[in-house]
Amino acid sequence: MSFASGRHFLQIPGPTNVPDQVLRAMSAATIDHRGPRFAALVPEVVEPLKPVVGTSGDVVLYPSSGTGAWEAALVNTLSPGDRVLCFETGHFATLWQAMARQLGLEVDFVPGDWRHGVDPAEVPARLTPDVKAVLVVHNETSTGVTSDIAAVRRAMGDHPALLMVDTVSSLGSVDYRHDEWNVDVTVSCSQKGLMLPPGLGINAVSAKALAASESARLPKSYWDWKPIIEANKRGAFPYTPPTNLLYGLREALRMLHAEGLPQVYARHARHAAATRAAVQAWGLELLCADPQAYSNTLTAILMPEGHDADKLREVILDRFDMSLGAGLGKVAGKVFRIGHLGHFNDLSLAGTLSGVQMGLRLAGVPVKPDGVTAALSVLADA
Amino acid sequence: MSFASGRHFLQIPGPTNVPDQVLRAMSAATIDHRGPRFAALVPEVVEPLKPVVGTSGDVVLYPSSGTGAWEAALVNTLSPGDRVLCFETGHFATLWQAMARQLGLEVDFVPGDWRHGVDPAEVPARLTPDVKAVLVVHNETSTGVTSDIAAVRRAMGDHPALLMVDTVSSLGSVDYRHDEWNVDVTVSCSQKGLMLPPGLGINAVSAKALAASESARLPKSYWDWKPIIEANKRGAFPYTPPTNLLYGLREALRMLHAEGLPQVYARHARHAAATRAAVQAWGLELLCADPQAYSNTLTAILMPEGHDADKLREVILDRFDMSLGAGLGKVAGKVFRIGHLGHFNDLSLAGTLSGVQMGLRLAGVPVKPDGVTAALSVLADA
Amino acid sequence: MSFASGRHFLQIPGPTNVPDQVLRAMSAATIDHRGPRFAALVPEVVEPLKPVVGTSGDVVLYPSSGTGAWEAALVNTLSPGDRVLCFETGHFATLWQAMARQLGLEVDFVPGDWRHGVDPAEVPARLTPDVKAVLVVHNETSTGVTSDIAAVRRAMGDHPALLMVDTVSSLGSVDYRHDEWNVDVTVSCSQKGLMLPPGLGINAVSAKALAASESARLPKSYWDWKPIIEANKRGAFPYTPPTNLLYGLREALRMLHAEGLPQVYARHARHAAATRAAVQAWGLELLCADPQAYSNTLTAILMPEGHDADKLREVILDRFDMSLGAGLGKVAGKVFRIGHLGHFNDLSLAGTLSGVQMGLRLAGVPVKPDGVTAALSVLADA
Amino acid sequence: MSFASGRHFLQIPGPTNVPDQVLRAMSAATIDHRGPRFAALVPEVVEPLKPVVGTSGDVVLYPSSGTGAWEAALVNTLSPGDRVLCFETGHFATLWQAMARQLGLEVDFVPGDWRHGVDPAEVPARLTPDVKAVLVVHNETSTGVTSDIAAVRRAMGDHPALLMVDTVSSLGSVDYRHDEWNVDVTVSCSQKGLMLPPGLGINAVSAKALAASESARLPKSYWDWKPIIEANKRGAFPYTPPTNLLYGLREALRMLHAEGLPQVYARHARHAAATRAAVQAWGLELLCADPQAYSNTLTAILMPEGHDADKLREVILDRFDMSLGAGLGKVAGKVFRIGHLGHFNDLSLAGTLSGVQMGLRLAGVPVKPDGVTAALSVLADA
Repeated sequence: MSFASGRHFLQIPGPTNVPDQVLRAMSAATIDHRGPRFAALVPEVVEPLKPVVGTSGDVVLYPSSGTGAWEAALVNTLSPGDRVLCFETGHFATLWQAMARQLGLEVDFVPGDWRHGVDPAEVPARLTPDVKAVLVVHNETSTGVTSDIAAVRRAMGDHPALLMVDTVSSLGSVDYRHDEWNVDVTVSCSQKGLMLPPGLGINAVSAKALAASESARLPKSYWDWKPIIEANKRGAFPYTPPTNLLYGLREALRMLHAEGLPQVYARHARHAAATRAAVQAWGLELLCADPQAYSNTLTAILMPEGHDADKLREVILDRFDMSLGAGLGKVAGKVFRIGHLGHFNDLSLAGTLSGVQMGLRLAGVPVKPDGVTAALSVLADA
Repeated sequence: MSFASGRHFLQIPGPTNVPDQVLRAMSAATIDHRGPRFAALVPEVVEPLKPVVGTSGDVVLYPSSGTGAWEAALVNTLSPGDRVLCFETGHFATLWQAMARQLGLEVDFVPGDWRHGVDPAEVPARLTPDVKAVLVVHNETSTGVTSDIAAVRRAMGDHPALLMVDTVSSLGSVDYRHDEWNVDVTVSCSQKGLMLPPGLGINAVSAKALAASESARLPKSYWDWKPIIEANKRGAFPYTPPTNLLYGLREALRMLHAEGLPQVYARHARHAAATRAAVQAWGLELLCADPQAYSNTLTAILMPEGHDADKLREVILDRFDMSLGAGLGKVAGKVFRIGHLGHFNDLSLAGTLSGVQMGLRLAGVPVKPDGVTAALSVLADA
Repeated sequence: MSFASGRHFLQIPGPTNVPDQVLRAMSAATIDHRGPRFAALVPEVVEPLKPVVGTSGDVVLYPSSGTGAWEAALVNTLSPGDRVLCFETGHFATLWQAMARQLGLEVDFVPGDWRHGVDPAEVPARLTPDVKAVLVVHNETSTGVTSDIAAVRRAMGDHPALLMVDTVSSLGSVDYRHDEWNVDVTVSCSQKGLMLPPGLGINAVSAKALAASESARLPKSYWDWKPIIEANKRGAFPYTPPTNLLYGLREALRMLHAEGLPQVYARHARHAAATRAAVQAWGLELLCADPQAYSNTLTAILMPEGHDADKLREVILDRFDMSLGAGLGKVAGKVFRIGHLGHFNDLSLAGTLSGVQMGLRLAGVPVKPDGVTAALSVLADA
Repeated sequence: MSFASGRHFLQIPGPTNVPDQVLRAMSAATIDHRGPRFAALVPEVVEPLKPVVGTSGDVVLYPSSGTGAWEAALVNTLSPGDRVLCFETGHFATLWQAMARQLGLEVDFVPGDWRHGVDPAEVPARLTPDVKAVLVVHNETSTGVTSDIAAVRRAMGDHPALLMVDTVSSLGSVDYRHDEWNVDVTVSCSQKGLMLPPGLGINAVSAKALAASESARLPKSYWDWKPIIEANKRGAFPYTPPTNLLYGLREALRMLHAEGLPQVYARHARHAAATRAAVQAWGLELLCADPQAYSNTLTAILMPEGHDADKLREVILDRFDMSLGAGLGKVAGKVFRIGHLGHFNDLSLAGTLSGVQMGLRLAGVPVKPDGVTAALSVLADA
């Protein structure tokens, strides 16, 4: 790629564009993690994070990626050979169940077509008595398909299994209610809706999950919730925390609350609607086949037969300095993904969709040149 | 203005969007301006600036705005009561001649309609024998109209007057040739095509101008070229220089040369063409009435009768977090200006034009919704 | 100089060490200087600056160095041929009167030995009836000698001359009272006690000075107070302001007021006392010969006969990565200067004095190795 | 703590003072971790890290703290019930063996007095045939005591156990030779000698360790070396990497290599010697009882009977804005620790020791006031 003027458009579905003020906040000098200034910082990141997760319970932060937060959810609550129920909603659901297998769990993996979310109606039959946990991805980053968490929980009835939910690409961008929906472990990370660089893993933990951790026998040390929750109460961590990311988190949470969470969620909904309007006007097809399940944070688009999504992305990167998400796993080469989450606004979305429209043309994909205009109509009317 | 997510679009014709790497370069610790590290810095900013100005001669940097660089050009070369010839090409030409008057010079101010550049054919008649300097604005920031500097110089024939040119909103974005065009003083500053924050004034000085400064009798001390040129030779300044802006200038010049000056100029030409295509497709009129004089760095657009440009700008600022340039002076309220210079790319331009298109609609200005699509055609084809 | 680990010690008497949070504040994106966000910024820098200057009157900010602020003071208030009274307290007093001459003023320059401040007793005899202004340097950056401004003003009696004071290296570090001491023009800049990079010139202006500017006939345009004061009232500037430096100024003023001005002044007094204790313990001599006139922001130290101050500074720079101030003008090579102003604390001072002590030893200067210990006693006791 | 001017002195033994240029490097925009620019970044961090570890083999980076890198070493190589041999050299050795126990390993923990390193002579007797791994802390961060890794390896003879070494507070500051000393897993992290904020865990892995990982049966997924090593070969990571920390690592490694690793190590040795000279001159006692085992990166100092180390640290933090390391575990309240590693120079060390000397005095600890002077002698002579 040759030298490019202007800002890169990072429109993968995460990591997202980190606000300058967050990067600046992160560039403050690292402090003593055992001193009084750090002790004051801990509640300033933990407390304002709770409403974003929709919980008044415990939130645990790790120096890790979101993958680490997946592992934390499993090793804190389960024992070797435990059965978990997973749903093949896309690439990341597939990876999470693969991790569960690798850690020594038994996995029931309900097949899916990557174009629909979890069907709650399917849950009761799949939920055998020995299932210890149900794992659901709230917003599949690989497909732009969401699952209805509240409905899944309702479908679980009074089965004692834990409900664990991956909110990696939804948290901070989409309304999410850990407590109200009775989720036991919410898994997330820093580099999507929370507008931070990668490096911070998140678990929100119900009382029931915490109780389960007492008897869980998968080996755990680094991921162990208990010492972190205990240490946090006195403004500390049991091992060196990622201090500068915490500075960034404090600033990012200030920004989210300054905008207002309902406003943040409405903005993402509006941008997603405008993006889908563009897709329709181009004459292309969404990967997500269920309008109830459309993601508000990313849109995965099917390439017309005979056209390679990765070739398109390469044209767009070379010519317009914009990164789009690749098709992953089963849909590699067949879809591309537009991330429209995090620190983002109408004009950046317009620039993004303009880049896609021009790229489609340059890549020789037969589309109508009406996508951007359609999106602008949605944005101006909203 | 309420809290806004995403990056502000600063699309006034300067200050322009400063690249992050320039801001980071500027945030390095200030150093001793009398020490060896500073001495090494001076040629690293002065030398790479020269090809941008098109000179192999002297370039003088001031801690000042561009207005200071105007004053420097005058007080270094002229004496009280000297006659200068100016052309009313717009607001900034008007301000510069007013400054000349205030400093005690006699000004011949050739009237203009703000829609055309200097007419070289008019120069000989206006160039009375006692004129000591001709002042021309290369690229009128208030109107988006350029003047043909080489033609003006040719029209001056062998008249001994100095030629002084304001390149505030062209330098670094448009091909400019101080030496080849035989300009005596080129005036510029940091916050436009050089992609820096404001605070640095620039003069490029011909040997003839330097000679003139020997006998010029307007009082000068801060602006005096000689001590600066002398001190620069040994890597110093006669008074404390704006060290951190110099760090930024070094980085900005690296970026311009990495992209390649011809590529930089072509980019600006392409963006200007795309912007004009949008204006035409909207059915609006450019302020610039001469296609030969279109600016490549900004576009001033006339509002249809009965519509207020400032109201439009307010809508766009409030709704889309984009700053556009106001009409200044004679054209206040009647035009708005889009800056498309500096650190800028195709998708940012698309976002910019999208904001204008939506703003026009929201402000009730009767336009066709085809501007962005037209611009994208230009951009994708180029 | 080879690569050096750790932070450079910038202990010249300015530019001073800019706090990280100020550099970060300055790295925010430049905004439209004609928009509402900028309008809100103006009072946030102007108002908190006033108590630092000790005025409730007008303060004028320039994109310039302090040298520009000197020129502004003169051209706003005086006419060609006007007589001004200056005192040779050091290098900068000498430069200021030279500027006055160059601008066409008549200068009475009272000789001095660079080791004492202005003698108020000398003022009445020197203050001939035609003197239009008295120029005094509050804190001579070249010598570490202060002058008693209140006493000078008292000595002027009811003579109508304006009193202009250079506070370049005292403002923000030492108690200064523009209004109470009846100063007419206070001159300062950003890169010393205000803890900013260079690039911002400051004038504080009395009503009498403002009135004088009505009839002053030195040419002025860029430096003209009136348009700036007028524009500031509506949150604007008449030409492009140095926006990012203003961000830094806002943050620096927040820091000064958070510490508390009395605490800031006491800190500087304490550090100066500790430095002098070190000098005495080394067995060296201060340039300042009057204990009443010791500067709290810098200390100039005489080299023993036969030892070159610049050689010492070179050793210290090469070996300990610390920049010290050179002797300037008459005392070049004979003194070195330690800056202990701005963003500075006890341990940084200890490091500074340690570097001087080791450097003296390495340069073969015969001193007792007791300076640091003596300084630590002062610091720990205070 | 009240507002403090000047820079905080972060003289705990890590996190260390992060260089400004590293913080700036880290504040660049996050990029697509699946794109070509990221692919180019991977070798730019992995390759220059290898000489710092002294290996030409595999190096694995995690988004984690150093504690995570401990866990990675264990779960990649061992199976439930495996026996490991550990030595009680201090607090972190104690934590590491506790982690091993918690993960289901059998631990032989050789008692120690926290004042000596591992005695190689003790190894053969302790090294029972079923020991699968020997765990040694190279530089005990809690005590300032080092162990001779090469000697330990020699003492292991041809026993097949793996040798795992914690270099958390030595890597990048002290000569370390993973390959030459035949270490199997070297454990480290970002926030000490590598001059970065916390958040990056490091394993260097021998071929033998890699082979052992094939049959190791502790559950592993996040920490699994194989997918990371494989992905790194094509410039990728199996899950989202901490991109901005990698930017910082690239810059920090450039700095280390620019200074030269031998020069870096010599600097740390010199600073440690100066610190010990100060301790001796104060009349205090080092925790480390073996001169062969003195740490070059931190110094732990015993408080005289009846004086509380934490009270001293509190005085120093409140009065001089310097953070020192607490005594941990067995020596809580009895020792304080001075970190003198990472981005550090002579004058910062002088400031640090000055703060300790003044703090000791203010806390009423009976010491001679000669420590700083003694240290300066060492520094100036070296």
